[in-house]
Amino acid sequence: MTDEMRTTMPEAAPYSAETWPIATCLHGIPVTDREGVPLHDAPPKSWDAVFLEVAELGFDRIELSDSHLRPADLEPSRRDELLAIARDRGVAIPSLHVQRKSVIMPGDDGSRNLAYAHRSIDAAAAWGMEVFSTGLHQPFTAAQRAALWFWTVPGPVDPDDPEVWATAVSRIRELGRHAAEVGLLMSLELYEDTYLGTADSAVRLVEEVGLDNVGLNPDVGNLIRLHRPVEDWRELYARTLPYANYWHLKNYARDEAGDGSWHSSTPATLEAGLINYRQVVRDAVEGGFTGIFLMEHYGGDSLGVCATNQRYLRTLLPR
Amino acid sequence: MTDEMRTTMPEAAPYSAETWPIATCLHGIPVTDREGVPLHDAPPKSWDAVFLEVAELGFDRIELSDSHLRPADLEPSRRDELLAIARDRGVAIPSLHVQRKSVIMPGDDGSRNLAYAHRSIDAAAAWGMEVFSTGLHQPFTAAQRAALWFWTVPGPVDPDDPEVWATAVSRIRELGRHAAEVGLLMSLELYEDTYLGTADSAVRLVEEVGLDNVGLNPDVGNLIRLHRPVEDWRELYARTLPYANYWHLKNYARDEAGDGSWHSSTPATLEAGLINYRQVVRDAVEGGFTGIFLMEHYGGDSLGVCATNQRYLRTLLPR
Amino acid sequence: MTDEMRTTMPEAAPYSAETWPIATCLHGIPVTDREGVPLHDAPPKSWDAVFLEVAELGFDRIELSDSHLRPADLEPSRRDELLAIARDRGVAIPSLHVQRKSVIMPGDDGSRNLAYAHRSIDAAAAWGMEVFSTGLHQPFTAAQRAALWFWTVPGPVDPDDPEVWATAVSRIRELGRHAAEVGLLMSLELYEDTYLGTADSAVRLVEEVGLDNVGLNPDVGNLIRLHRPVEDWRELYARTLPYANYWHLKNYARDEAGDGSWHSSTPATLEAGLINYRQVVRDAVEGGFTGIFLMEHYGGDSLGVCATNQRYLRTLLPR
Repeated sequence: MTDEMRTTMPEAAPYSAETWPIATCLHGIPVTDREGVPLHDAPPKSWDAVFLEVAELGFDRIELSDSHLRPADLEPSRRDELLAIARDRGVAIPSLHVQRKSVIMPGDDGSRNLAYAHRSIDAAAAWGMEVFSTGLHQPFTAAQRAALWFWTVPGPVDPDDPEVWATAVSRIRELGRHAAEVGLLMSLELYEDTYLGTADSAVRLVEEVGLDNVGLNPDVGNLIRLHRPVEDWRELYARTLPYANYWHLKNYARDEAGDGSWHSSTPATLEAGLINYRQVVRDAVEGGFTGIFLMEHYGGDSLGVCATNQRYLRTLLPR
Repeated sequence: MTDEMRTTMPEAAPYSAETWPIATCLHGIPVTDREGVPLHDAPPKSWDAVFLEVAELGFDRIELSDSHLRPADLEPSRRDELLAIARDRGVAIPSLHVQRKSVIMPGDDGSRNLAYAHRSIDAAAAWGMEVFSTGLHQPFTAAQRAALWFWTVPGPVDPDDPEVWATAVSRIRELGRHAAEVGLLMSLELYEDTYLGTADSAVRLVEEVGLDNVGLNPDVGNLIRLHRPVEDWRELYARTLPYANYWHLKNYARDEAGDGSWHSSTPATLEAGLINYRQVVRDAVEGGFTGIFLMEHYGGDSLGVCATNQRYLRTLLPR
Repeated sequence: MTDEMRTTMPEAAPYSAETWPIATCLHGIPVTDREGVPLHDAPPKSWDAVFLEVAELGFDRIELSDSHLRPADLEPSRRDELLAIARDRGVAIPSLHVQRKSVIMPGDDGSRNLAYAHRSIDAAAAWGMEVFSTGLHQPFTAAQRAALWFWTVPGPVDPDDPEVWATAVSRIRELGRHAAEVGLLMSLELYEDTYLGTADSAVRLVEEVGLDNVGLNPDVGNLIRLHRPVEDWRELYARTLPYANYWHLKNYARDEAGDGSWHSSTPATLEAGLINYRQVVRDAVEGGFTGIFLMEHYGGDSLGVCATNQRYLRTLLPR
């Protein structure tokens, strides 16, 4: 994506600190309702409880992750019902996050995920969303599921294989074109050990895809939490922010042994963690970022910390 | 304790988020006054300074720990003096916490602690309290006292001995009956390496005691801070909350090496730590918990964090 | 410095919680402006942006560190320009911090730093400042610069050499006398591995210097963050607060393996970290501390955390 391209993206909205779109993730919402029914299949009152809760925490937007509900698989009448409930609670759903469904997984999984991504894009458009967010990370391994924090255990690694890389480029481009046709941005999340796992690789990937509506989700929090040497967050943001069209923000406290023998991280508020969001958000806005900010937090009271983070983030935005 | 039993416990008070009883621990108050006199022996003005301080931080209730003052050993005139001072500052003392005085310690200690517990129960009743809180943990070892955080060093371990277990059950039942006679709840604190150190063992113990007024203090914070593998906090709460009649709430940030070679924890606010209190408090209230919440925090500005935590906790309670 | 000496220091100002002078460090301000020009050489508009930013965060005072701007090297016209800008933004500059310019560095560095310190004292006076703050720490090693946190890697160590100690005493006394002549306090920062690295050594040094206007900056945060056994913060403050005439306040979460095999720390807010500032600030004020509080924080949003810390600190001060 070049600077010329950027000018064809959605115009810089005249957002103020109060009006800039900030959504919350749903990590704090159990994937089943209180009766144990998956949210996808839950009755309207369970959905209502979700929207009520996020609204009471001060959010008027959520990111819908397909861990909670799969728009691609929800019949239109249920969709309309859900959207009506959300609207009644004053909550919009501007983005769909399809996760751990890499389109370059080996075997049939990759093509199955590709088909699912296409259906998800159509659904996102039908739901009136603005952003289709995804990445190249794969389902958790058993060891990751068993860990206190999944990021402390190595997961699948994208191969150093030009053919797989080419498949990644072509399938993402295919999805990006589809997204453009239905008026959506497509955003690719930084995630370790995938082709989106380093600043260089992520930039190269999005450049090769070469579509105006396909950018990066510079979720640097994914990287600074790893129990291994990591790129400097300043460099990661400097390289990737020019391509950002959607943004997962989360932060971690981090420590490292002076001799590199151990690395440690714990989830932190945006204000208290390692990344200086005061600086990075300013850099992003001055650099032309006009996307949605997505509050993300793992562990503990995710929703509460996301709400705290929204209040903090608004103090960083231009008035 | 069965569900039938629960119905005989104090009726669900019609507490609102504003009126639910929330007390603070006194970890932030030195055990001696500013002249070096133990609080137990201190003049009224020293007591007044304590109650003034907690009142100014927004607390109208404290838990009195016998590390600070032993009701069992205070003459009635001094007690009345103290209670008058507390009342003048708008602070109630609904609970007594007798700690590190296990009634199953080997040798004479166990029976001496039993006698002390009986005297403490009588005193708690005479002071107009509602809860007698205790546990099976023993005094710190020298190594624990020397550590930055005592929980990083192993302490005494309750033996795998049916006879000692039976003594625990019978002595706790004896204390529980005494407590019931004088109108008190008795609450047993989860604590590692004691018979109250795992969900299973704690539930089994309270079931065998089998008294309506004897329940658990599900202080899961005691467990998630350990430098070793620990039970999942979700499971711990799911198993123990049905038996809770009093509740120490504290939180920790926690990290673990992916290969299990180290575990780390640091005190955190209720909102920022590992345990999701938004979820757990809701589960507790919906499950019928009607007890006192006790704000506990180790290290740093304990009182300040307890005050921050009270403000946070009230946002979690039903309005 | 004896108690008699203390009485000759600036009189206890009748500060209230609202008026006590609290300044922020500038760690959160890049050392170059947005065009890459060092702040020292930057145009007035870049300076204005700095003062605007700190003012909007609620600060009316900053500590100027010579990492950002060297008063000793700024021509008077530029100085007056800068001070006018600061005044327009409502920001005062009561203290200059000259750092990593130890006057006992080996070879020519020591005497060069001594000369620079003299020029800095004259400049501080000319700028209308109150405090000349410095220490004996030296420039970072390459390994420290490469580390995530510089304090996790050993740096230079002051030698166990009576001659170098004597040089330290005499040069600091020389600077202290100069500072006194121009009406400045001089404050020496606790810092590991220097003669100001332990409570005993720091107290001995300031006693041997023996000047009313030369005291300590009890920056205990510098010590509790080290990845090695450290003195207890309570002891450090108890020993050094009587000599404090300026104070860098910062806090860290800290954990240690029970067997001492590792130590870990991460930056924390004043309220949430290991040091109990509620207690320490009270002790300091009751002990006669009347100096400036300097909010310091490394990593992440330094300015934001400093602002949060100022709000917290004011709640600790006497009303």
